[in-house]
Parts: sequence; structure tokens; C-alpha cells
Amino acid sequence: MFISFEGTEGVGKSTLIATLQATLVAQQYDVILTREPGGTPLAEKIRQLLLQPDQEKMCASTELLLIYAARAQHLDQVILPALNANKIVLCDRFVDASIAYQCGGRGLDRQHIDLLTENFVSRLPDITFWLDAPVEVGMQRAQKRAALDRFEQEKTEFFNRVRQTYQAIATQSPQRVVCLDATQTPKQIAEIALQYIRQKI
Amino acid sequence: MFISFEGTEGVGKSTLIATLQATLVAQQYDVILTREPGGTPLAEKIRQLLLQPDQEKMCASTELLLIYAARAQHLDQVILPALNANKIVLCDRFVDASIAYQCGGRGLDRQHIDLLTENFVSRLPDITFWLDAPVEVGMQRAQKRAALDRFEQEKTEFFNRVRQTYQAIATQSPQRVVCLDATQTPKQIAEIALQYIRQKI
Ligand SMILES: Nc1ncnc2c1ncn2[C@@H]1O[C@H](COP(=O)(O)OP(=O)(O)OP(=O)(O)O)[C@@H](O)[C@H]1O
Ligand SMILES: Nc1ncnc2c1ncn2[C@@H]1O[C@H](COP(=O)(O)OP(=O)(O)OP(=O)(O)O)[C@@H](O)[C@H]1O
Ligand SMILES: [Mg+2]
Ligand SMILES: [Mg+2]
Repeated sequence: MFISFEGTEGVGKSTLIATLQATLVAQQYDVILTREPGGTPLAEKIRQLLLQPDQEKMCASTELLLIYAARAQHLDQVILPALNANKIVLCDRFVDASIAYQCGGRGLDRQHIDLLTENFVSRLPDITFWLDAPVEVGMQRAQKRAALDRFEQEKTEFFNRVRQTYQAIATQSPQRVVCLDATQTPKQIAEIALQYIRQKI
Repeated sequence: MFISFEGTEGVGKSTLIATLQATLVAQQYDVILTREPGGTPLAEKIRQLLLQPDQEKMCASTELLLIYAARAQHLDQVILPALNANKIVLCDRFVDASIAYQCGGRGLDRQHIDLLTENFVSRLPDITFWLDAPVEVGMQRAQKRAALDRFEQEKTEFFNRVRQTYQAIATQSPQRVVCLDATQTPKQIAEIALQYIRQKI
């Protein structure tokens, strides 16, 4: 089973994934935890190019193509082999993040993104947990961190567009995307997510 | 004017470009020399990922998407601004190299490549000089060099497919692609190329 986790910065994705992993492993499931962009040594190098702020202005098409380059490698080397071995794959961000950030946030054509997905992404998640909360909530939660990366430096308006786009995706794909109210406690959120996963298993 | 140079390894692209640049600059033309993958600091970092041999197996889609990520940046930051400033752009490899290497060499779908070109490449060359010679000729010329990069490590059969694909492109686009017999001397080749350029100017 392939499960992705989506949402704006600091909303609680990593926290939820860690709890789910611990719980599922305790129940004898074979689980791998991975993330995008990244997930393989090469894809993590691409991630570095994407996140480092102090370089030439990256054009929006370059950003999108780099993300899909990393994704193709991640699918080929990590996700598909794990699914073929009957593992549960917990993936921190996937295709929806490209739609939300590059299309919603940056204003790229949705068509461009769908075209890349259709041609270079052979597998979509079975369940996507979208952690939703007002942008400010996640920002406050994440604020304890060190230097901001190239995405985190964007303004609130950018992240509001990202959040709205996640909402649109959830409306379009109600069978796949589960909206979780991320203003709840981590425990409440994890319990609801586990119910969905058990139902799917 | 936008001019690209194509051909298999060691066939004489860099040599020809250097001669053309010197000649055109001496005639008061404003010329920039650039190359793919690369041409901007970020695109050169992507080039490094593409060429370094000692890493995990790169899947063919990742390679293709990285090349187009670098190309989008190169167009946006270097080629289009130079053309807008009426410069002559001499570019060592461009879209045809993706068709020849990724489609001809690696066996990727031509459709995938055309789709990326249509959606992410807003400008094609006015002239493309294809330096053609038997693969062995270029290999012998280039053999003096140090360690082989990830492409140079491919077998002769790979480069024969690349050469055949260049032939097919030249047949498809006779107005744009000029085939130069690369077994001639550098002087002879440069003279023929200059005639074509003067004609276009
Ligand atoms: N439901 C929650 N309620 C309150 N605080 C939370 C909740 N979930 C996570 N946090 C805290 O918020 C901060 C950010 O959480 P986390 O790192 O899980 O978010 P994230 O979505 O993975 O962020 P990023 O997008 O930056 O990766 C952490 O300090 C975490 O402990
Ligand atoms: N027409 C020619 N006849 C003989 N030798 C040549 C000719 N053109 C170039 N050479 C020599 O062949 C070698 C390779 O040439 P060059 O570097 O220009 O090829 P290239 O196509 O740019 O190679 P690469 O694909 O590796 O960039 C050099 O040593 C160069 O001096
Ligand atoms: Mg996180
Ligand atoms: Mg060269």
C-alpha cells in the first residue's frame, strides 16, 4: 500500500508519519518511510538544488522538471520495488505537492503538471492524507527551526494558494484524498489516519 | 541567431565552435558560446549529476527530465536574453542531442521527448550543424582525454544508434539541420559552416 502525506509547511506531516510507522511496525507490518523531493541519494542531491536559497533565480519550469526528475528516480529505485515486495510505503509529499506548490503557488499551468504525471509517474498513492490547517498554524509550529529554505521563504499569500489547491485536489479525488483537521492533537490525527489505513488493508 | 552543434563524442564540435567564435568576433559580431547540459551555474550543477559515473543507476526518465530542467534554466537565463540582445548564440548540443541520446541511444519514447520540447522549450535553433563521422573516428580523436564520463562509458553500439538518430533528424528537418562531413580538416569544416551562417545573416 502506497500512502502519501500532504499539507503546507509545519502542519504535522512528519509527526504523523513517525507515529504511523511506529504503530504499523509494532503490528508486524513491513513499512518504509520516504519523502519527496528525495528518497534516493541522487534524488536527495536534486532536493538540495531545489531547496538551497542562495543561487541564481530558478525558473518555474526548471523547478517542476527537477521535481519530476527526482520523482522518476524515487519511483524506480524505492517506491515500486517496495510495493512489489508488499511493503507499506509512507511518503512525505508526492504528486499533489507539485500541483499545490508549482501550479497553485507558482502559477504554472496545471496541464504541464498533469502531462508530466501521465508520462513519468506510473503509480499514484492508494491513500493521501491531507493535513489541513490555516497556514499560520503550521508556520508557528515550524518557526522553531533554523534557516528557511527556498520554499519556506515564500509569503503567506503563496501558502494560502497552496492550501486552496490542496482543497481543490481533495474535492476532485475524494476516494483517494482524506482531509484531516490538523488543528487537532497529534494523537487524534493519528487515530483517524489509522482507521482509514486499517479499512484499506 | 541561434546556432546549435550536434554529433557523437569527439567529432569536433568544440573545435568548430571555437573557430567560428573567433572568426565572427573578428567580424564585429556579438557572440556568446554556451553548452548543454549546462550554461548557467545551476544548469552546470545539473550537468554534474548527469555526467558523474560513480552513483546509483540513473533511470532513463530521470536523465531526460534532468536534461530538460537544465535546458529550461539555460533558455530562461542565457539563450533568450542573448537572442533578445541580438547576439549570435553558439550552443554545444541542444534538443537534437536529447532525441539522439535519450531516444536513439537509451531507447526512450520519442513522444516523451517531443512532449517535453513542445511544453518546455520555447525556442529552437535557426541552424543546427551536425558533425557527422563514423563513431570510431570521434572516439579515436577524443581518446587522449582523462576519465570517461557516464555517457562516454557507453559502447560503440550505443553511439551508432545515436548517429543513426541524428541522420533521421537531419532528414526530417532539412531546412534547419546542416550535415557537415566531420572527416574533413577543421579548416574545411569551418569554412563550409561560415558560408551557411553568412547566408542566414
Ligand atoms: N497536531 C499538532 N498539534 C500541535 N503541534 C504539532 C502537531 N503536529 C506537529 N506539531 C509540531 O509542529 C511542528 C512541525 O511538525 P512537523 O515537522 O511534523 O510538520 P511538517 O508538516 O512535517 O513540516 P514540514 O512541512 O516543514 O516538513 C513540530 O514541532 C511538531 O512537534
Ligand atoms: N576535423 C578534425 N580532424 C581531426 N581532428 C579533429 C577535428 N576536429 C577536432 N579534432 C580533434 O579531435 C579531438 C576532439 O575534438 P573536439 O573536442 O572538438 O570534439 P567534440 O565533438 O567537442 O567532443 P565532445 O563530444 O567530447 O565534446 C580534439 O583533440 C580535436 O583537436
Ligand atoms: Mg516534515
Ligand atoms: Mg566538446
